[in-house]
Amino acid sequence: MVVQLKAVKIQKEKEDQVIIGQGNFSIYTTDNIFRDLLTTVPGIKCAVAMNEADPKLVRFNDNDERLGDLTAKNALAIGASHVFVIMMRDAYPINVLPTIRNVPGVCNIYVASANPLEVIIAETSLGRAVLGVVDGQSVDSIEDEEKREARRELVKKIGYILG
Amino acid sequence: MVVQLKAVKIQKEKEDQVIIGQGNFSIYTTDNIFRDLLTTVPGIKCAVAMNEADPKLVRFNDNDERLGDLTAKNALAIGASHVFVIMMRDAYPINVLPTIRNVPGVCNIYVASANPLEVIIAETSLGRAVLGVVDGQSVDSIEDEEKREARRELVKKIGYILG
Amino acid sequence: MVVQLKAVKIQKEKEDQVIIGQGNFSIYTTDNIFRDLLTTVPGIKCAVAMNEADPKLVRFNDNDERLGDLTAKNALAIGASHVFVIMMRDAYPINVLPTIRNVPGVCNIYVASANPLEVIIAETSLGRAVLGVVDGQSVDSIEDEEKREARRELVKKIGYILG
Amino acid sequence: MVVQLKAVKIQKEKEDQVIIGQGNFSIYTTDNIFRDLLTTVPGIKCAVAMNEADPKLVRFNDNDERLGDLTAKNALAIGASHVFVIMMRDAYPINVLPTIRNVPGVCNIYVASANPLEVIIAETSLGRAVLGVVDGQSVDSIEDEEKREARRELVKKIGYILG
Repeated sequence: MVVQLKAVKIQKEKEDQVIIGQGNFSIYTTDNIFRDLLTTVPGIKCAVAMNEADPKLVRFNDNDERLGDLTAKNALAIGASHVFVIMMRDAYPINVLPTIRNVPGVCNIYVASANPLEVIIAETSLGRAVLGVVDGQSVDSIEDEEKREARRELVKKIGYILG
Repeated sequence: MVVQLKAVKIQKEKEDQVIIGQGNFSIYTTDNIFRDLLTTVPGIKCAVAMNEADPKLVRFNDNDERLGDLTAKNALAIGASHVFVIMMRDAYPINVLPTIRNVPGVCNIYVASANPLEVIIAETSLGRAVLGVVDGQSVDSIEDEEKREARRELVKKIGYILG
Repeated sequence: MVVQLKAVKIQKEKEDQVIIGQGNFSIYTTDNIFRDLLTTVPGIKCAVAMNEADPKLVRFNDNDERLGDLTAKNALAIGASHVFVIMMRDAYPINVLPTIRNVPGVCNIYVASANPLEVIIAETSLGRAVLGVVDGQSVDSIEDEEKREARRELVKKIGYILG
Repeated sequence: MVVQLKAVKIQKEKEDQVIIGQGNFSIYTTDNIFRDLLTTVPGIKCAVAMNEADPKLVRFNDNDERLGDLTAKNALAIGASHVFVIMMRDAYPINVLPTIRNVPGVCNIYVASANPLEVIIAETSLGRAVLGVVDGQSVDSIEDEEKREARRELVKKIGYILG
C-alpha cells in the first residue's frame, strides 16, 4: 500500500468563514446543513458543498453565487468523499457550530476559521482521507495594551460586549 | 517493534450501507447492536459482525443471509479484535447512528457509508488496530442545476422532503 | 527531535478486565476512580493505578492484592505520565464505562478489554505519550450456528438475556 | 509538501497549572475563557493567551502579570494559529475543565497538567498544527503504604477528602 500525503490550499477571500467536516448521505445532508444554517442565523450568506463518490460529484447549495462557486471548487480540490465544506458571511462559526454538530449526517468537524487553510490529505489508489488542517500562519508577536483595547472595541462593534 | 500498514478492501454490493466501529464484550454487543437496529428501523435488513480475540472468532447475526455472509467475511478480513461491522438495506446510517452511539459496548464509529471502503490497519506480532478508512473515490466534477434538481427528486422519493 | 515508537505488553490473567485512559491530578483521581468503581458495582474486585511525573511514581489503590500488584506494574511499564490503568474482576467494562467517563479528572479512554494488550507509545527525551492500543489477536474464523448458541448460553449465564 | 515535526518546550514554574487547546474567534474567545475562569473559581489567578493568524498576534488576558507574561510567551513559542494556552494558580484543571468544554469557541483540549510539557507540532510553509503533547517525565517506581498515606494527607489538606 502506498499512502501519499498532500496539502490542498483552500481558496477564499479574507472575510469568508470556512468550516470543514466529515459526514454521510451527501444528497440529503448538503441541503440539510444549508437549511439549518438559514434558520440559525437570519440574513446569513452561505454555501454548503459535499463530495459524493458515486457519481464522483460535488453537491452544493448557496444563497450567494460567489460563495457557492468557491465552496464547490474547494470541495473539489479536497476531493475526499463525504467531506463537506461550508463558507459564509454575516455569521461566525460560534453562531452555527452547535447546530452543525446536531445534524444527523455529520460525523465530525475538522476546522472552523476565517484564516488561510491547508487541508492535509492521505491518498491511496481508491481515494483520499483528510488527516488534519493547518489553520493560518504562525504568530510572531504579543499584543500590548493598545492592541488589547482595539480588540475589545472590535468585539463591542460586533455586539458581543454588553453594557 | 515492527508496525506494518495494510489496506483491507471491504466487499459489498453498491446499495449496501456499511458502518464500522470499535467496541467490547463481543458475545453480548453483537446481539445488542443487532436488536437495537431491528427496533430502530422497522423492516430493516441487516447484519452485525464483531471480532472476538479468544476464541479468534467472528461473531455475527443477521436477518438476511447475503448480508450476514458478507458482514462476517469483512470482519474476518479486517481481523482487528473488538471491531464491529454493520451492513444493512432498507435503512440509512442517519436512521441508526444515534442509536448505535448509545450502545454501552460501543467505543467509537470509524465510518458510515455506502461507498467502496478501504480500512487502513496497523499490524504487530499480537494483532491489528484500525487507523482510518478511505470512504470512496475522489470527486472530479461539480453538480449543475439539472443534477441538483435530480438530487432533490431522489430525496423526495426517499420521503425526506416534505410538502 | 527524535521520537521513538515502542510497544508495551500488558501483564494480566485471562479473566482480568483492563481499562486504560488519560487523566490528570493523579493524587486525587486515583482514589476518585477507585471509589466510583466500588459504588458502581457491588462486590467488584478492582485496582486503579495512575502515573505521576513528579515524583516519578505510580499511584495505586486496590481491594485485591494480586490486581493491585499487576495494575501498578503495568502502569510502570507504560510509563507515560497521567495515564491510568484499571484492572478488575466480577465486573465488565459496560458496567463502569459511563461512570468513568464522568470522573472530572478523566480526559479519555483508550481501550476496555480482557484481551492481551500492547500499548503503542511514542518516546521523547522528556517522556512518553500513548498513541494507541492493539486489543488482542486477529480473528481467523467465523462462528457457526452451534457456536452462536453457545455464545447466547454464556450471555444467559451472565444474566444479560432476560425471559 | 514538506511537513516538519518539532517539539516546543512550555515555560512554567513547578506549581503552574497549564491547559492547551484548539478554538476559534480569538478576539472574542480570549476574553470569554478568561471571564469564565474568573466566575468558575473565586480567587483564581490566571491568564489566557490565544493565537491569531491575521494580524500574527498572541492575544492575552491576565489577573497576574507573571502568568500573563509566561502564557503569552508559551503561545508565541507554539505558534500555531487558533491554539489557546491557559495558565493558573489557586485552581486545578478539575475545577474548570467542564466550564472550558462549554465555551462556544473551544474545539478541543489537548492537555491539562502541572507537569513539564513538550508540544509536538507539524510545520508547513503556511503554519503549524499541534499533533500531541508529552505530559511530563516517565515514572520509575511504585508507591508504598507510606507514600499512599502521604498522598491522602495531601488531598485532605486540599480539602477534597471529607469526614
